[in-house]
Parts: sequence; C-alpha cells; structure tokens
Amino acid sequence: MTKPVLTISSKNYGAWALRGWLMCRLAGLDFSEKVIPPDDPAMKAEMLLLSSSMLVPSLQHGGIKVWDTLAIGEYLNEIKPKAGLLPADAAARAHCRAICGEMHSGFASMRGALPMNIKARFKGFKVWSRAQADIDRIVAIWRECLKAYGGPFLFGKQPGMADAMYAPVVTRFLSYDVALDSTCAAYCKRVMELPAMKEWVAAALQEPDEIDELDAEF
Amino acid sequence: MTKPVLTISSKNYGAWALRGWLMCRLAGLDFSEKVIPPDDPAMKAEMLLLSSSMLVPSLQHGGIKVWDTLAIGEYLNEIKPKAGLLPADAAARAHCRAICGEMHSGFASMRGALPMNIKARFKGFKVWSRAQADIDRIVAIWRECLKAYGGPFLFGKQPGMADAMYAPVVTRFLSYDVALDSTCAAYCKRVMELPAMKEWVAAALQEPDEIDELDAEF
Repeated sequence: MTKPVLTISSKNYGAWALRGWLMCRLAGLDFSEKVIPPDDPAMKAEMLLLSSSMLVPSLQHGGIKVWDTLAIGEYLNEIKPKAGLLPADAAARAHCRAICGEMHSGFASMRGALPMNIKARFKGFKVWSRAQADIDRIVAIWRECLKAYGGPFLFGKQPGMADAMYAPVVTRFLSYDVALDSTCAAYCKRVMELPAMKEWVAAALQEPDEIDELDAEF
Repeated sequence: MTKPVLTISSKNYGAWALRGWLMCRLAGLDFSEKVIPPDDPAMKAEMLLLSSSMLVPSLQHGGIKVWDTLAIGEYLNEIKPKAGLLPADAAARAHCRAICGEMHSGFASMRGALPMNIKARFKGFKVWSRAQADIDRIVAIWRECLKAYGGPFLFGKQPGMADAMYAPVVTRFLSYDVALDSTCAAYCKRVMELPAMKEWVAAALQEPDEIDELDAEF
C-alpha cells in the first residue's frame, strides 16, 4: 500500500489542519503531506467559512478516503489501536468523545473572535462576553479532565485525540494573551512542548504572510 | 443496571435531540426519556445558540454519562455492535463518519435559515444563496451514498447513524418546501416512514406552542 497522504492548508491559520496532522503524528502514522496553497480559491472560501466544502484535513490511505477531523481520529484509532488516541476505559472513552464533539461543533464565538494565528501575539487582547463564555467552558473541561485522569494530558499519561482537538485552542490562548489559572497554563505549556507541536509551530513561523487579509475574519 | 436515560428538549424544535433519540431507537436501546422543558432558561439559551452548554442530548447509562450527538452514536455502536449503526466495512465506516462529521460541524447557513420546526409548512419558502450551497452539498452527499451502497438508506439496507444525523434535515426539507430530485425525495419519504420517526413526529405535533418566540431564531 502506498504511503498515506494527509491534505492540509496553512500551518499558521489552519486549525482543523493542525488537529488532523497532530492526530496522525500521535498515532504514529507514516504519512506524507499535501499542502493546498492558501491562495487556492476553494481553500480560501473554506477558510473564510464561505463554502460548504470540506477540503482539509483529509486523509487518503490506499483506497480509503476520510475527511472531517473526528472521522480521521476514529479511523486512526481503528488502524493504530495501540497508539491510544482514545482512552482504553469505556467511560473515559465516552467522556473523551463528548469533549471532542464539543470542540468539533461548538465554541463558534471563541473561534470567530480568536482565530488561530500562531505567529501573532496580541498583548492585552479584549475578549468579549460570548467568546469568554466559550473560554470558560473550555477551561472547565480541561480542569475536569486533568483532575479525573491525573494528567499530564487530558486523558492521562499520553497525549491523544482530545489533546489534538484542543491544541489550536492552546495556540489561541497564547496568541491572544488569555489569562489562565496555573493548572491550565501548565497544560498549555505541555502541549506546546510536544515534539510534533514544536515541529508544526516552527513550520507555521516560516510560512510566508500571503494571506494577511484573512487575519480579521478566520 | 438501571435503565438508561436520554435527556432531550423539544420534539418540534430540537434537531440534536431528534438525532440522539433516533440513534438510541435504531440501536435498539431500552431507555427512558427525560424532557427539559423549553422554558427552562439554560435550555432556552442553548436552543438560541446563546450558551456554551451542551445539555441535550445526553445519555446516562449506569455510571457513564455521554453527551454530544456523535459521542452518543459511537457509544451506542460500542454497546450495541449488532445493531449496525455504523457500517461493517472499514471504508464505508470511514465514509459514514466523514459525512456525519460534516453534519455535526457544518451547514450553519442551512441550520440558521431553515430551523427544524416539524409542525410548520412554508410553501414557496425562499432559500438564500449560502443556505442553498449547504443544501446542494447535502443532496450531493445523499446521492453519492445511495448510489455507492445501493440504498434504500445512506449506507445500505438498514437505517443507521448517518440517517439519524440527517433526519432533521429531512424534516426541514419538508417544512420549507425544498425542491428535490426524485432520488432524494424518495429517500426523505423513506426516513419519514421509519416507525421511530413517525413516533417522534406524532409527539412533535402534539407539543404545545409555548416557545413560538424561538421560531424566527432557532
């Protein structure tokens, strides 16, 4: 079988791309990247939330094509069960899927107000009330998981699907100077120190600034 | 173990509630319903998309609590594997999760412009362009599935998770008089004729009109 190919977009702005890519890395998948340039019209429309398409992330593996980030996570968990992307315990697994689902379908105010932009640092950024309610819920989710499963990652000793789903939020909290308690600040530091995360961030910082006009909207 | 309890909201307006409830029925789960009244302030905020909470649907099963519709579907598939909520074939299963993911995180324009309202019939309803793009994508998804797996349901002979995810869309297409080709119209008819769907619709039609003010917004 040929090497799996993961299609992604910008490493600086592409929050869904980061989630899918990180899941592949955490699963130990040997894959190649195909990058759709951000000036591709269909990609641009997707990043601006102006289209109904789902171009990224998507994973082609032999005859199987899977898109949508959660579907990629479940697929990886099936082909790499030993990687522990999802918790082994049934109750913890249900909890993990629930909070991954919250990230997948929700927090629209936070996503709109604090778009992922790894290069940026906005000191004293003002978060408005609905985005703050999303942030409060995310912090509550993290604190509950870190307490219930003992950390250092959301579901215990190793990083998995939930950490990948929330990784773009970690970068947003840093970019937009969001005040966090020490437990959550330490969790963010831990995610940023993952070797795969460092590799992604390094690539994001190298990315040319060709899509500056997206900053305010995505 | 005590009987599982599914918490839901309005049967007329609650699209997520319908998805979760239908999955429980299709899985053959023996469960009780707990209905949060629509005038409950937290529920109302959630239905108006003004809160970060995820009150419904949620499933309590012994010591396990699972919320978020996709997480409930995956949980049911684990405890009722023979029900076939997800396809048995790996490639079809990946495809199924991908289109369930599209419904879970996307189609915001369609959801905003054509809120689920089972009682209502709007003849000649005007669909604007972005909602129409969502509808076009949904129709393409249905046609591709019905062709690839031979129907009569999205992944073959029996209704499953994908049909439950798109069931509220079926009711919207009827409520808002959306023009469909014969393949998709027949699929809608088939979904509406499922015994569980008939039971839900009958209950929705009986529901008092106490939340009329939601009509325009949810």
